[in-house]
Amino acid sequence: MNQNTVEQPSGDTSASGGDTAAHIRRNFASDNVSPVCPEILAALNAASTGSASSYGGDPWTEKLERRVCEIFETEARVFPVSTGTACNSLALSALCPPWGAVLCDESAHINNEECGAPEFFTHGAKLLGLPSGDGRISPDLLKRALEKAASEGSHSSKVSALSVTQATEWGTVYRPGHLREITGMARDAGLGVHMDGARLVNALAFLDCSPAEITWRSGVDILSLGATKSGAMAAEMMVVFDLARAEEMDRRRKRAGHIWSKQRFLSVQLLAWLGDDLWLRNGRIANEMAARLARGLLRQPGAVMPFDTESNEVFVVLPELLLEALEAAGFGFYRWVTPPGVDGTLIRLVTGYDTRAEDVDALLEVLAAVE
Amino acid sequence: MNQNTVEQPSGDTSASGGDTAAHIRRNFASDNVSPVCPEILAALNAASTGSASSYGGDPWTEKLERRVCEIFETEARVFPVSTGTACNSLALSALCPPWGAVLCDESAHINNEECGAPEFFTHGAKLLGLPSGDGRISPDLLKRALEKAASEGSHSSKVSALSVTQATEWGTVYRPGHLREITGMARDAGLGVHMDGARLVNALAFLDCSPAEITWRSGVDILSLGATKSGAMAAEMMVVFDLARAEEMDRRRKRAGHIWSKQRFLSVQLLAWLGDDLWLRNGRIANEMAARLARGLLRQPGAVMPFDTESNEVFVVLPELLLEALEAAGFGFYRWVTPPGVDGTLIRLVTGYDTRAEDVDALLEVLAAVE
Amino acid sequence: MNQNTVEQPSGDTSASGGDTAAHIRRNFASDNVSPVCPEILAALNAASTGSASSYGGDPWTEKLERRVCEIFETEARVFPVSTGTACNSLALSALCPPWGAVLCDESAHINNEECGAPEFFTHGAKLLGLPSGDGRISPDLLKRALEKAASEGSHSSKVSALSVTQATEWGTVYRPGHLREITGMARDAGLGVHMDGARLVNALAFLDCSPAEITWRSGVDILSLGATKSGAMAAEMMVVFDLARAEEMDRRRKRAGHIWSKQRFLSVQLLAWLGDDLWLRNGRIANEMAARLARGLLRQPGAVMPFDTESNEVFVVLPELLLEALEAAGFGFYRWVTPPGVDGTLIRLVTGYDTRAEDVDALLEVLAAVE
Amino acid sequence: MNQNTVEQPSGDTSASGGDTAAHIRRNFASDNVSPVCPEILAALNAASTGSASSYGGDPWTEKLERRVCEIFETEARVFPVSTGTACNSLALSALCPPWGAVLCDESAHINNEECGAPEFFTHGAKLLGLPSGDGRISPDLLKRALEKAASEGSHSSKVSALSVTQATEWGTVYRPGHLREITGMARDAGLGVHMDGARLVNALAFLDCSPAEITWRSGVDILSLGATKSGAMAAEMMVVFDLARAEEMDRRRKRAGHIWSKQRFLSVQLLAWLGDDLWLRNGRIANEMAARLARGLLRQPGAVMPFDTESNEVFVVLPELLLEALEAAGFGFYRWVTPPGVDGTLIRLVTGYDTRAEDVDALLEVLAAVE
Repeated sequence: MNQNTVEQPSGDTSASGGDTAAHIRRNFASDNVSPVCPEILAALNAASTGSASSYGGDPWTEKLERRVCEIFETEARVFPVSTGTACNSLALSALCPPWGAVLCDESAHINNEECGAPEFFTHGAKLLGLPSGDGRISPDLLKRALEKAASEGSHSSKVSALSVTQATEWGTVYRPGHLREITGMARDAGLGVHMDGARLVNALAFLDCSPAEITWRSGVDILSLGATKSGAMAAEMMVVFDLARAEEMDRRRKRAGHIWSKQRFLSVQLLAWLGDDLWLRNGRIANEMAARLARGLLRQPGAVMPFDTESNEVFVVLPELLLEALEAAGFGFYRWVTPPGVDGTLIRLVTGYDTRAEDVDALLEVLAAVE
Repeated sequence: MNQNTVEQPSGDTSASGGDTAAHIRRNFASDNVSPVCPEILAALNAASTGSASSYGGDPWTEKLERRVCEIFETEARVFPVSTGTACNSLALSALCPPWGAVLCDESAHINNEECGAPEFFTHGAKLLGLPSGDGRISPDLLKRALEKAASEGSHSSKVSALSVTQATEWGTVYRPGHLREITGMARDAGLGVHMDGARLVNALAFLDCSPAEITWRSGVDILSLGATKSGAMAAEMMVVFDLARAEEMDRRRKRAGHIWSKQRFLSVQLLAWLGDDLWLRNGRIANEMAARLARGLLRQPGAVMPFDTESNEVFVVLPELLLEALEAAGFGFYRWVTPPGVDGTLIRLVTGYDTRAEDVDALLEVLAAVE
Repeated sequence: MNQNTVEQPSGDTSASGGDTAAHIRRNFASDNVSPVCPEILAALNAASTGSASSYGGDPWTEKLERRVCEIFETEARVFPVSTGTACNSLALSALCPPWGAVLCDESAHINNEECGAPEFFTHGAKLLGLPSGDGRISPDLLKRALEKAASEGSHSSKVSALSVTQATEWGTVYRPGHLREITGMARDAGLGVHMDGARLVNALAFLDCSPAEITWRSGVDILSLGATKSGAMAAEMMVVFDLARAEEMDRRRKRAGHIWSKQRFLSVQLLAWLGDDLWLRNGRIANEMAARLARGLLRQPGAVMPFDTESNEVFVVLPELLLEALEAAGFGFYRWVTPPGVDGTLIRLVTGYDTRAEDVDALLEVLAAVE
Repeated sequence: MNQNTVEQPSGDTSASGGDTAAHIRRNFASDNVSPVCPEILAALNAASTGSASSYGGDPWTEKLERRVCEIFETEARVFPVSTGTACNSLALSALCPPWGAVLCDESAHINNEECGAPEFFTHGAKLLGLPSGDGRISPDLLKRALEKAASEGSHSSKVSALSVTQATEWGTVYRPGHLREITGMARDAGLGVHMDGARLVNALAFLDCSPAEITWRSGVDILSLGATKSGAMAAEMMVVFDLARAEEMDRRRKRAGHIWSKQRFLSVQLLAWLGDDLWLRNGRIANEMAARLARGLLRQPGAVMPFDTESNEVFVVLPELLLEALEAAGFGFYRWVTPPGVDGTLIRLVTGYDTRAEDVDALLEVLAAVE
């Protein structure tokens, strides 16, 4: 099962139309179909006054780094960028040489949906996808991969980094113990550790642990922390815990076109998102709506859910008849590649900070109404 | 003289402080120290409602492409990105192979101030800077460079593209005839033509000609059109006139992390900027303020201005005593590398869409007050 | 099973020592442990007289291209280089863009044993290894991979090339029908086709068909044809059947440091190897010796052979006791990663143009003597 | 004046023809038109016996490293490759990051005649050519370049390495004091130092100093030492004095396709070349022949020699009439780009280890015979 082989989302996903009728938000295609969260929009407006030094020399950027260090209870360097692909790829380029390889789950976004961005930024490193099944790298598979790597010489790419996705692409969440086990193995083998935290807030909301516990205290060297999927306009940040890895990151960002001249408008989004626990609240809402959706689907005859719903993504196999009913009612979602032997079609439904109970219930009602 | 060897700007460039005292905008360091222009900010706010398809499948993006085609009076493909460095480098990568070379002026931003981004995106092409003196490539130098290229074989990088900057890094502006002469020579030699239009609005305001005339009708294949320096938050766009060059541009953008998931917020900035001639009005204001500044400086004893002020950048050599007075009064500007043999220090003063006559006059008064 | 996880070869593989005792060639580690074949060495000596134009402007290079066209019964461009890794990677770079992907068998040399060279030369393309099991890509797996690729957009690398290895890394050989089936599917999907022919001579010797039949008539666009493993000092050549792909290959070679200044000494090796059917004779000898070895091993109690021996590589699972006996007797071979659940150790034994019946028999006698 | 703008060499440069008539070697186009030197050819033949471990695990490679350490009187790591372009580019990639810049003379081979190979291997670093005039970087220009670099931030490529060419592309030779001055400045600024020693033997023959004195004792971190131009078939080596720079060089070489499987045949060329002072004798012969040629040309009316002849390259401006006479007599040479304002045509004449006094005299006689 590989989530990057997707057809176009069903349903009316345009800004006007479907969503406005009866005020039901019908777009479950992704968490990035949402608008900017009001608190962040307000902060953007407030920051747009007076002149400010460009390229990160502004006070918002400085404040952001301080705030992140507080929240993560450690010293760290922070580099804001506007997309998750850039964030992941820049991070990997600081962890893996051009002749290196990155171990990741075969479902990882970096492996499937970034059009070779990690390969571009690392100048040709290989991504080695481990087929763990539910998005969480299995210690056994990792052990075997590391043993193989240890036996290889200069004819093979040098396995240099481990990348974990939290929450995973299948909506599952690593427990801290699992994470520490695999990052420990990786670090013992000399690898650097990256975490793709495009949906870290959803994992945090599920685990109810501290940001520190699930990142650097669990062996993460560089975190890609995403805000766009939970309310920002376009804002992600590398949080670099291994400070030596931050060296030359500004040149890496600059030559990739990823330093905004008016960087205050990137930093202020992240500041507002982290402020007053907005990020965690947004994560919690999305998770609750996904849980509500999953509970409803479990009651739906013919629905099969291959994974536990631990964050804000719900995967479900449904008969085509039901999918057509959803489409007819204007609901948006992605059809995934359905594994061989499965009866029905696997789809992904994603909730966001702005999904409401009535949106979820409306979807469930459409399904329930099909005879 | 090379503008990328700059010291930190003088003056208080923070968002609070200097600028608020007496409501005088003292920051002349760059046109990217400005906030977002109110019209664009309003459009951003208005677009933040309802769900929208991600990655460019939104109605704003579609409308933007139509609007650009109208304004430029031709069919074109439009690709919005958030920085000028990304815009230039992606454009060059579609014009020049990894074993190629790009001819540009030695002062070009792509050559000096993008930390090797064109080399990164083209996978190693060379930039060959021609020393024309005032930022406008001289036909004679270009002729010689093309003759040399024609005589070379596979031991030399293949000269594949010409990149012109309009307005130039020295604030000068190519006349249409000059532009057509050099792009004609380039096209005859099989080169593609790129225009770095980070300040095209200032050139348009100066020339008072149509956007078409100074771009594709003057031989430009891909235009990097910048809005950030004249009012946007972070928005530039490639305007691809040679449609074959647009092929695979989405994959180029994606693997560079330069497709926003919520792209509507990139496109809407550009739509608002192009709408109602806001872009031209903003360009005109900046030019007028630069002209006012230049006129004042010409009356200043001891001031030497090496270039005509044709856009929104003013270069002037001033005695250190005067610079210290400006700094003491809180004015921000960049010290450039002063050419050998020049008495005094070369500085750059940049005006923006939000510069006012009283800001300029306050600066001139400080100079006039020095005995 | 993955052949790039290899330990150091057992046995005395130095030039002196083991091999000389009783004149038995004990080194079965690879076909590249052999010296230069006498006919090729003689040709090298003969070419070393008088001055010759450098960088390929010599008469040997010209003659080589003509000879290759004759042998392959078609027009082709020929580019000699000194290593197989360079040959494969340059070929792939002409078939796959930086944002592309190459489909290959998961056992492929390009995927495992070239330290990311294809990624380097293509500037970051992905290699997607299909797990066919015996080194020959299965039409079913290829079909599924092509369907997946067809459903993907610009978030995924563009599947652009198919690379087949003939003979494969497991010593098996594609039949022409099999080859035509999978290259046909690839070409229908718009992919270019590469053949890694590091051991093409062994496949030719096994199939007893014409070089044309198993290459361009079977859908191959660029062939990497290797001579080093069957007698040359260091000489391989790209044979480019799709002439448009040859454009700029000289610049690709030059910027990779793969044009010899004294190229006559590269071309003359290949000329001598192709002349008088030396290549086919060398291939046949190696195959016959491998077949003799395989026949002997099949009679050996406890030996399991996972693949048919169709070229010059023999894979066999043997109990450790037997391997220790071989090592004690000075025989060189590689231990492969043994698949889970297999009793014993998988090793690879390779024969060359210079392997003799007595060398093979000596090895078999050592095994037979173990009680 | 830039030597990479060359037309095809005049004269009959094929292996047969011109050279055989009257046994006069007429090809002065380059030092790589020569055959393999007999001593090296003999060593190649001798090494072609028995099996040997591949990829550098052979005894010749081990012996070579020991021999180089003896000759250079220090510990060093040695990496043989088959071309000078590969040797230079691999060395630079270990000295300069992708976002870095290399300072070199504007005439440098790496800058003009390697088709962007340094850019390829470094993944996009810039080469900044200093216009010193005679190929030797002037301390003044270097000082200015380093000061500029020190003033720059992350918007500019990081100046990371200095590359010197010894002997230079104009046939001049750095004196040890000059070399120490500029490498000292570079090292003080944190740069690594590379020497392109494609013709180091000619510099050594001219200076009559020890190899250590003109390399690591003069501040060189990595030397590209070329044997091909003075007798080898295709053999160069990186001599890495800064041992930390050698780390991962094997992976760099492997992924560039620059590790021969039968590496013994690369190492043995270099061993024979260094053995018994063959390299120095070959260098001396070429220098003496160039000096003889230069003396003759100085007596030739109308000849202007822009540079001192200090190695084996002679640059001379001659009237077209004389060049036509040389061409008519079958002599081979390159026409260089003639500087503006010069009357006549600048050509390059190169002598080799196999040039004889009668070859030189024959050329001079042709000139003398023109009325």
